[in-house]
Amino acid sequence: MARPGGRSARVQASVHAAVRELEAERGREALTVPLVAARAGVTPSTIYRRWGDLQELLSDVAVERLRPDTEPADLGGLRADLTAWAEQFLDEMSSTAGRAYLRDALLGDPDGGNAGQCSAYAAAQVDLVLDRARERGESGFPAREAVMDHVVAPVMYRILFRPDGLSAEYVRRLVASALDRSTGR
Amino acid sequence: MARPGGRSARVQASVHAAVRELEAERGREALTVPLVAARAGVTPSTIYRRWGDLQELLSDVAVERLRPDTEPADLGGLRADLTAWAEQFLDEMSSTAGRAYLRDALLGDPDGGNAGQCSAYAAAQVDLVLDRARERGESGFPAREAVMDHVVAPVMYRILFRPDGLSAEYVRRLVASALDRSTGR
Repeated sequence: MARPGGRSARVQASVHAAVRELEAERGREALTVPLVAARAGVTPSTIYRRWGDLQELLSDVAVERLRPDTEPADLGGLRADLTAWAEQFLDEMSSTAGRAYLRDALLGDPDGGNAGQCSAYAAAQVDLVLDRARERGESGFPAREAVMDHVVAPVMYRILFRPDGLSAEYVRRLVASALDRSTGR
Repeated sequence: MARPGGRSARVQASVHAAVRELEAERGREALTVPLVAARAGVTPSTIYRRWGDLQELLSDVAVERLRPDTEPADLGGLRADLTAWAEQFLDEMSSTAGRAYLRDALLGDPDGGNAGQCSAYAAAQVDLVLDRARERGESGFPAREAVMDHVVAPVMYRILFRPDGLSAEYVRRLVASALDRSTGR
């Protein structure tokens, strides 16, 4: 999406900022490419050339919004760290804003690059939690992809397809099951 | 989405058929509400009143396409039945058409009803497989929601967000892990 080069980066920053401002001021339904272009000080054709259409632009903005802005908390042990991270992940992704960003990220994304970036953000957070456990000398913890399959995937699947019964307690059970499975408990 | 009443059902059938025909003839990019209305023999306002916009109509059509048209095969045992069903589920949902229908189903679906229907179809298929095992007197099989969390969810999450490495072998591992977990193996 972002092309190399200073001007390209400035255009992206100003267009993304214009989307965020206009969304806050007028709501997403009011967004149009000409409106965003005017606020960003670029021509509509600049936006069409670069993003194709409004949906692809909103998808790029959504992925930026879904990027974690903090590292997972260090609570001194894998179970506590992974549980706290997963509970926060559920809170953020299942919020009204989180669901809207997830939909945008998936929808204006024909090549799947933005959806992949969302998943990469979660995987990087899980890696941080597991690396910390490794550094502490903890053992018997699951592989990152096992956490993706059995903690991240069920949370995301239920947010998108099956929201009934989503709760912090549900997430704690997923984490406990993933950890117990990896230790053969 | 379908309202009760004979005329309503006829309108839905003719509009859905028009979408399928026009998509096959001209491709989805060519679809417009006036084009679909003309083919279906209804007014555009009938479609706008009932579906809101093209995206919601495409979402309804996609859910119809995602409805399983066969029962899971009976191969004589839970492991074989669940493995075969999960492999077929992966094939169908990860196909080019399947991915397009999944995107459509999620997209034009502000209230989440269509996404919920997709998940309900999968849950009903899993129930059939588990009920059959129960009738055979098999024991130690997982609850339906455990299959949703640890087989269906990882497959759908990876199709949407993380497609690398999706394979029948991956699905077989998910099924084996879910079954072994439930029998404490």
